[in-house]
Amino acid sequence: MKPVAIRNIPRADAHVIARLGAAGVSTAHEAQGRTGLAKPYLRPAWPGGTAFGSAVTVLARPGDNWMIHVAVELCKEGDVLVVGLSSDNADGMFGELLATSLMARGVRGLIIDAGCRDVFALKEIGFPVWCRAVSAQGTVKASLGAVNVPVVVAGVLVDPGDVVIADDDGVVFVPRLTASDIAEKCDARLAKESSVRARLAKGELGLDIYGMRDALAKAGLVYLDDANALEGPNRKDA
Amino acid sequence: MKPVAIRNIPRADAHVIARLGAAGVSTAHEAQGRTGLAKPYLRPAWPGGTAFGSAVTVLARPGDNWMIHVAVELCKEGDVLVVGLSSDNADGMFGELLATSLMARGVRGLIIDAGCRDVFALKEIGFPVWCRAVSAQGTVKASLGAVNVPVVVAGVLVDPGDVVIADDDGVVFVPRLTASDIAEKCDARLAKESSVRARLAKGELGLDIYGMRDALAKAGLVYLDDANALEGPNRKDA
Amino acid sequence: MKPVAIRNIPRADAHVIARLGAAGVSTAHEAQGRTGLAKPYLRPAWPGGTAFGSAVTVLARPGDNWMIHVAVELCKEGDVLVVGLSSDNADGMFGELLATSLMARGVRGLIIDAGCRDVFALKEIGFPVWCRAVSAQGTVKASLGAVNVPVVVAGVLVDPGDVVIADDDGVVFVPRLTASDIAEKCDARLAKESSVRARLAKGELGLDIYGMRDALAKAGLVYLDDANALEGPNRKDA
Amino acid sequence: MKPVAIRNIPRADAHVIARLGAAGVSTAHEAQGRTGLAKPYLRPAWPGGTAFGSAVTVLARPGDNWMIHVAVELCKEGDVLVVGLSSDNADGMFGELLATSLMARGVRGLIIDAGCRDVFALKEIGFPVWCRAVSAQGTVKASLGAVNVPVVVAGVLVDPGDVVIADDDGVVFVPRLTASDIAEKCDARLAKESSVRARLAKGELGLDIYGMRDALAKAGLVYLDDANALEGPNRKDA
Amino acid sequence: MKPVAIRNIPRADAHVIARLGAAGVSTAHEAQGRTGLAKPYLRPAWPGGTAFGSAVTVLARPGDNWMIHVAVELCKEGDVLVVGLSSDNADGMFGELLATSLMARGVRGLIIDAGCRDVFALKEIGFPVWCRAVSAQGTVKASLGAVNVPVVVAGVLVDPGDVVIADDDGVVFVPRLTASDIAEKCDARLAKESSVRARLAKGELGLDIYGMRDALAKAGLVYLDDANALEGPNRKDA
Amino acid sequence: MKPVAIRNIPRADAHVIARLGAAGVSTAHEAQGRTGLAKPYLRPAWPGGTAFGSAVTVLARPGDNWMIHVAVELCKEGDVLVVGLSSDNADGMFGELLATSLMARGVRGLIIDAGCRDVFALKEIGFPVWCRAVSAQGTVKASLGAVNVPVVVAGVLVDPGDVVIADDDGVVFVPRLTASDIAEKCDARLAKESSVRARLAKGELGLDIYGMRDALAKAGLVYLDDANALEGPNRKDA
Repeated sequence: MKPVAIRNIPRADAHVIARLGAAGVSTAHEAQGRTGLAKPYLRPAWPGGTAFGSAVTVLARPGDNWMIHVAVELCKEGDVLVVGLSSDNADGMFGELLATSLMARGVRGLIIDAGCRDVFALKEIGFPVWCRAVSAQGTVKASLGAVNVPVVVAGVLVDPGDVVIADDDGVVFVPRLTASDIAEKCDARLAKESSVRARLAKGELGLDIYGMRDALAKAGLVYLDDANALEGPNRKDA
Repeated sequence: MKPVAIRNIPRADAHVIARLGAAGVSTAHEAQGRTGLAKPYLRPAWPGGTAFGSAVTVLARPGDNWMIHVAVELCKEGDVLVVGLSSDNADGMFGELLATSLMARGVRGLIIDAGCRDVFALKEIGFPVWCRAVSAQGTVKASLGAVNVPVVVAGVLVDPGDVVIADDDGVVFVPRLTASDIAEKCDARLAKESSVRARLAKGELGLDIYGMRDALAKAGLVYLDDANALEGPNRKDA
Repeated sequence: MKPVAIRNIPRADAHVIARLGAAGVSTAHEAQGRTGLAKPYLRPAWPGGTAFGSAVTVLARPGDNWMIHVAVELCKEGDVLVVGLSSDNADGMFGELLATSLMARGVRGLIIDAGCRDVFALKEIGFPVWCRAVSAQGTVKASLGAVNVPVVVAGVLVDPGDVVIADDDGVVFVPRLTASDIAEKCDARLAKESSVRARLAKGELGLDIYGMRDALAKAGLVYLDDANALEGPNRKDA
Repeated sequence: MKPVAIRNIPRADAHVIARLGAAGVSTAHEAQGRTGLAKPYLRPAWPGGTAFGSAVTVLARPGDNWMIHVAVELCKEGDVLVVGLSSDNADGMFGELLATSLMARGVRGLIIDAGCRDVFALKEIGFPVWCRAVSAQGTVKASLGAVNVPVVVAGVLVDPGDVVIADDDGVVFVPRLTASDIAEKCDARLAKESSVRARLAKGELGLDIYGMRDALAKAGLVYLDDANALEGPNRKDA
Repeated sequence: MKPVAIRNIPRADAHVIARLGAAGVSTAHEAQGRTGLAKPYLRPAWPGGTAFGSAVTVLARPGDNWMIHVAVELCKEGDVLVVGLSSDNADGMFGELLATSLMARGVRGLIIDAGCRDVFALKEIGFPVWCRAVSAQGTVKASLGAVNVPVVVAGVLVDPGDVVIADDDGVVFVPRLTASDIAEKCDARLAKESSVRARLAKGELGLDIYGMRDALAKAGLVYLDDANALEGPNRKDA
Repeated sequence: MKPVAIRNIPRADAHVIARLGAAGVSTAHEAQGRTGLAKPYLRPAWPGGTAFGSAVTVLARPGDNWMIHVAVELCKEGDVLVVGLSSDNADGMFGELLATSLMARGVRGLIIDAGCRDVFALKEIGFPVWCRAVSAQGTVKASLGAVNVPVVVAGVLVDPGDVVIADDDGVVFVPRLTASDIAEKCDARLAKESSVRARLAKGELGLDIYGMRDALAKAGLVYLDDANALEGPNRKDA
């Protein structure tokens, strides 16, 4: 790893980002072929928040938040800070003061593959954070990492400038170059889901709407009237 | 495992189910001799919800929610859908659309030994889910499982038609045939707890109410006025 | 382990405890040199509660809450009950009835390195609990432990009478003898943080406020205008 | 749970058990349709051992091995002791002395959903154990459980008399009533695998032996000569 | 935490240490009333090694092994190095070179609540290590900790000079001041176990040797001839 | 994700790979600036094996090993198969038959971010595997993934053709384009380590060899003759 901080990164179009953000994590994840989803251990520090924007990336060392301070200066209005670690650690690398600083620059939220603290205050000021743990454990400022280089965060490779979408379902990353295409697909999915939702709400079955009955029968599913129709011992199915 | 879907299952009496639901998870668990409790990794997708009803059971494959679609059709008003997996997996097998479909059929909630998504929307529409993770990870529809066969869910064997009770404390299953008896015991516990609660609130001690002092002394508990009364090194008690 | 219950313990000054409680977990943890923090798996059973007071300590056996009943009697107004276990266990050793009893004695909260139940009711009555799991699993009353002896709780040694501070960030323990000194340091930190917060909110950078730029340069951090300025393959930074 | 010890249980035919044991865990698991496998956290206390026999089942309380002592007397030559717990616990409920006692009765091994100790000695005397942890943590003898009732062990329902097979791959349970049928299927699988193994060793491909090429093409798999043939950004496939 | 290194510590008598070492982890743990056992996640880096000696203690920061270098100089013939961390981390803080250095000073082994690397080489040179993970992750030398102060290691408070015993069953710590007394109790246990083992090997039952039958009956255990003697539904015992 | 299989990939020079393999995981990881290390949950299925070669990469779905069959055909002498998953899963996706097939093609080993089975047989035939679990859980062949695309494996981005090194310390990946440079650095480290090892073995201290004493003093480390020299309460250092 080279200890560098890259000042300028390409960013996706703001309207594209907004459309992806409106679609939300689950829809965007599906729209890009079920890729780009952070492992589910990344959870909101407080429920109900959402964030979307361009990734400013940080690679940090365990128990050391020095590079986050470096990254703040390189963030712009509409960014989301994304922090990966060189090895697993849950220390509280981020709190209210850093959040105040990021909000002053227009940053929309933080994704961190480590811990976070001051969660009550973060909720009060409305700064959303997705993290692997809530921990007050303090950190040092001793080892360099890098800013705006590609990082792996919760199992996903993130390039600076990728689109980040985060809500109560977790965090998904959309590569910048395909963002517009995925936004398109999100809109199509949302339209389709809306119609399906209405039909389901009226009592129509997914089995019929999606036309699954033939495939199920072909795969060998057998319907029985009741358990007595089962032959032999059937109790150990799980 | 036979790929079957059983259409009809026996269900417990609705009044018995309602009494068990009113008692709640912890009381029902105690009333049946501390059995039937799902491991505590099953947590509500959103806090404050409760659900109780008859179990419609599903055995599904990891990353595959096909059988949940099959199960929807076999659910009735007052049921709770209970999904076990053939091996550990936290993918988001269930979301808002399936919830809409289940609500249209009068289903009261979902217990799933896997992941769930759209949690913000689920809270909005008031459909309660207990799951092992929140994850947007999409799933396929490729492998058969079974519906309304016995399944092991979070460490508990569940038969179709067993009574399910779920609240912020977790999930407990009461076998259908003993449900009425357990409801009886729940009522007795609740009455007794109410009187104990009043006495405790007034400052009476559990030591006295439950008559523990003799047993403690017999077991060898020694009261000392202060730490100086301890002989020898006593610092390493833990 | 000697099966003892110590009746009287020294306690810190109430005003000192109140100042530490007002500072909160993260500040107190920093003020005492980043020590005394419980591992972050101890989480509030319900969000938004706070507790601070003098530790009454319990050493209990897995699946056995007998000693908690013994401890209730030894608690005073302003105490926080702190329960460690002789081996890892997540059973629900504590619920609404014990909370009612503790509240009647003026106890401010519970820290337990095990499970807790009745979490909805605990929130309703306003009794805060920090625990490793929510679990309805019932427990027995069969094996002795000890009350008011030193215990290790979530990785921290706690002496009876130590100051306990707990909020949404977790739990920190401050030794009784240094409590006054740490309260002093907390006040100093809060004053300093307040001024830093104001400067950050106006857009000033931590890099400048904390004077980090020289140390970063000395450590070898290199700023580049954009990724093209990187020589060689730079993609695998994480 | 009723505190009972059942003296007599049905057992499968010894020749059938031996055939299943010779097939091993993975083959038996496949032969019965991929069911009956204990979750993989159950691991051998020492590598290289194997055990197969009839399950004598125990339901025990966390940190309490009293019921194991009760179960010893009910074991016969060729049995495997199978211990489930009422809630998760990793204490060392079993060691060399109990192993000596079981070996004196001809018991072939132990499956325990808890901890085990004396692992060096267990290896020396050749008594195989599958457990969730190695732990020296001592246990009490205070609470009743049950012997020879159905128990859920590592996610699988086990009835007394079911066939247990355990080796370095883990533990599988075969219901007694289907054991003979599954042994038949194991033999068929072993014969087929032997011929497939020989062909693979010569360099033939599974793609051809199993005839997968058509299905892959139908599902949409595209072969490309090299990465340059990929259109668009292709770097974020994971 | 004060950044200190204490040069001289009291140590237990070498003969007492040797007797405790010969007794082994499980026996010593029982002899001191089931206390002092490290949580079972501390495992040997290679199986079959044993170590016992006087604890030289280290408190280190996550991802930073500077203080281990400081501690080497303070170790003497017959010591065991014991490393605790200020927060959870599994990086490989120790490898072959440090082991070579410790062996040159007569150190008998390492207990580390973090990761270790070069495990193949450590086995070759015969230096035993108990750790929470094997990890090659390199560490920095940037933050101070302390040497020969009390540390909590895997849940146990360890004072410098305490006796450490480690084998395949894990790690136990015996306070220096009680070491002689515990060694005495170990000898008594070993003598008794030897006689019990002989009786068990001949087929005598623990139920009879330990005289458990009365207590079991009193507690309510019921023996039944077979499952048919059970009344009502008995299938859901687990 | 596009369902593609790339036939031809660039590979590093065989001599470079051999030098990296001889250096081993820990040295190569350090030589490339402490990057490229798989998270330590990837462990050898049997101890003592080593593997090094060019990565042929697979992206597979949970519980589905179809793409491994596709990948076998695309492997060459000297390759190491590297399998990442689209979401966490520990099912046994690989066993003896696939190993036989890979050995027939000269493949040196398998790195899989999932489970593996037939571990006893794998050891017998000498095929080394690094995996996250041993599990006999069978898998299906239903969903496409990709072969020879970039994948994230245990937290590391791996490109097809990267150099894989695996031993008892874990798994490290070296980008193909820097492999020769890193091999150079490994040789230099090994030479230096050899001389340091000799000095340490003679009793010289790392403190002196690495010249740490000044930096420690500057950072504030204080040496005290014994614990009595500590002022104030010093017991709660951890």
